[in-house]
Amino acid sequence: MALIVQKYGGTSVGDIHRIRNVARRVAKTRQEGNDVVVVVSAMSGETDRLIQLAHQAWENPDLREYDSLISTGEQVSAALMAITLQSLGVPSKSFLASQVRILTDSAFSKSRIGKIEVQALRQALKQRFVPIVAGFQGVDKDGNITTLGRGGSDTTGVALAAALKADVCEIFTDVEGVFTIDPNICPDARKLTHITYDEMMEMASLGAKVLQIRSVELAKKYNVPIHVRSSFSDKVGTLVTKEDKKMEKVLVSGVTYNKNESRITVVRVPDKPGTASQIFTPISDAKIVVDMIIQNTSADGYTDLTFTVPKTDLKKALKLVKTTAEAIKAQEVLADENIAKISIVGAGMVSHAGVASKMFGALAKENINILMISTSEIKISCVVAGKYGELAARVLHQAFGLEKGELRKEA
Amino acid sequence: MALIVQKYGGTSVGDIHRIRNVARRVAKTRQEGNDVVVVVSAMSGETDRLIQLAHQAWENPDLREYDSLISTGEQVSAALMAITLQSLGVPSKSFLASQVRILTDSAFSKSRIGKIEVQALRQALKQRFVPIVAGFQGVDKDGNITTLGRGGSDTTGVALAAALKADVCEIFTDVEGVFTIDPNICPDARKLTHITYDEMMEMASLGAKVLQIRSVELAKKYNVPIHVRSSFSDKVGTLVTKEDKKMEKVLVSGVTYNKNESRITVVRVPDKPGTASQIFTPISDAKIVVDMIIQNTSADGYTDLTFTVPKTDLKKALKLVKTTAEAIKAQEVLADENIAKISIVGAGMVSHAGVASKMFGALAKENINILMISTSEIKISCVVAGKYGELAARVLHQAFGLEKGELRKEA
Repeated sequence: MALIVQKYGGTSVGDIHRIRNVARRVAKTRQEGNDVVVVVSAMSGETDRLIQLAHQAWENPDLREYDSLISTGEQVSAALMAITLQSLGVPSKSFLASQVRILTDSAFSKSRIGKIEVQALRQALKQRFVPIVAGFQGVDKDGNITTLGRGGSDTTGVALAAALKADVCEIFTDVEGVFTIDPNICPDARKLTHITYDEMMEMASLGAKVLQIRSVELAKKYNVPIHVRSSFSDKVGTLVTKEDKKMEKVLVSGVTYNKNESRITVVRVPDKPGTASQIFTPISDAKIVVDMIIQNTSADGYTDLTFTVPKTDLKKALKLVKTTAEAIKAQEVLADENIAKISIVGAGMVSHAGVASKMFGALAKENINILMISTSEIKISCVVAGKYGELAARVLHQAFGLEKGELRKEA
Repeated sequence: MALIVQKYGGTSVGDIHRIRNVARRVAKTRQEGNDVVVVVSAMSGETDRLIQLAHQAWENPDLREYDSLISTGEQVSAALMAITLQSLGVPSKSFLASQVRILTDSAFSKSRIGKIEVQALRQALKQRFVPIVAGFQGVDKDGNITTLGRGGSDTTGVALAAALKADVCEIFTDVEGVFTIDPNICPDARKLTHITYDEMMEMASLGAKVLQIRSVELAKKYNVPIHVRSSFSDKVGTLVTKEDKKMEKVLVSGVTYNKNESRITVVRVPDKPGTASQIFTPISDAKIVVDMIIQNTSADGYTDLTFTVPKTDLKKALKLVKTTAEAIKAQEVLADENIAKISIVGAGMVSHAGVASKMFGALAKENINILMISTSEIKISCVVAGKYGELAARVLHQAFGLEKGELRKEA
């Protein structure tokens, strides 16, 4: 008998009909002799509806209230899932984060889980209930409701699996697994049967929307196997685990594409110690995530500093940067929203120096100009003009032979 | 400086525009030097939407899950109200029942408040926040979310006013106060400036939908003045207080009309001790509220027993009664949904024997047959065929001269 945490995303619980399908799968998993803990997201569209209400009330809503508001989406789907399971004769009980208790810090709208108390869930399992946990939410030490950021239900699922020492965390979504490239961009996308935590983290952080990156970090830390699969079929999906010696070391596992970043350039920054810190401290204090940072060698005592921030934070970041730019007497601040970032990811990349030049060559052949480059041990990212983004992704997918093997065109 | 609890109903917070209007009124009340605690209902339509979802999931939803589901409506409006007040520069903070703590029993969907802890609210007031409390909801000793029954936000408001020793509980609604009759039935309806708790309780229990009856019971118990008024105007509404010697003792204060009851008749019940108890115990155990009960004198060792239950409980009640009827060998069980109850209410009625005959005479003059009669110290109720209900109400309103005086036709 295994203990399985199953997390169902918004499209999987999008309406009562789909909730019923999910409930049948949960019932089946239990009939097969397993203990199941279910984590649910809000019904698709619901979180957006609530966010819109918040912004109608005020463009700059207080984040404590914002979290209390948007956490209701998961509360609704957890109760509906419990009721539906009961209608199938399966005893079930919903749990809010405050009832489990999933304790977080007080960084509203992007809280981190500190501790999960598992007694209530263990007790429910012992009494043969299927616990349904509202994903995405937490509670801080003062009893305030917090949320874990977009896609936070994945983190709820993995954190629960870790705390309960579950055998696997199954993440049910509307795709059949992790693909070598977004199938919407490239019809030759191939489903991966295995991927390592590190590769998955790069894929997630680079724009493959399958899993929230923090959930993968957490899975790696506690060595929780994640099985990413579709709630609309019974097919095996993609298993995310630590690196296995037996795994074939592929050079490049996938290509990702991200058009949610924007670029800020501070022109002619006086090149002296401390200026970079002066620029980035206020941005980091505002909890804006900076992705790529590039600074060219200084020639005449001045340098240009370029970096990327999420488009949603551009306005806020620009305001902060302009203030700093004035203070440090930089010439001007430029912004560009029309960019795309394309990356190749692969655990085998580290030992192959030729991967980068192959990437640049493939882009050059299509006359796609590279605006920024950034590398890590298992990925290489290039920023290009937004209009070339999808083309660049397809070109790279082909250049590294990812379309070969079993094609999953039905996806 | 007064401490005022203001409760706003669903239509008063029906959309962001209305929430903003309410927030302005709250801000004004505070600017006038008062401390304000706000209680909000769900946005109009939201509770019905959630109930519909529950019933789509299962026609017989588990009430623990049902409460967790439908309590989200108030959570949403509390957060939106806090955000909107903040946007007007008024510090504000939302509170769920579990955060205040409003402790109830575990009778899900119709819980009763046992205790309210006021420390958190007092602290918030001291820090100059306007606390916004989610109405309708409570929390039991095990941390489960409960709800107080339809209209329960009124009870939240009054219970908070009592616990905080507030000077008044203002109930903002979509009408301008308590009227002598439902203005939708009779255009001659007149707004009452004062009404006693007892009269209001009879009015509420008899179908005037202005206030939840339990909120008035509670207000009477703790002597909390209630001011029923419109959130769409600044006019003074109706003050509900204990009887005041100075108040003019009117014979009849109002006429109420209720078409939500249904009638069950158990035919030829063997007339021996214990049968009534056998019939009503299972109904009461099922928490079905029985309103009128009539049993005629027995002639031949058999009697007919007639009583009314809410239409929504008719199916459940019938099933229970039929089982009992078989056990006690009654002849048959009849049900009638097409009835209406018309009542006249007035604190002065007790000393005037002629009120009943005047009522029956007025109905007879219009050839309206009376099916059941029930009386209390301050009210007389008659059940008539459903189709005569509105006519009967208008006839009585006129017979007791309620249309005289200042007419409030603008309502």
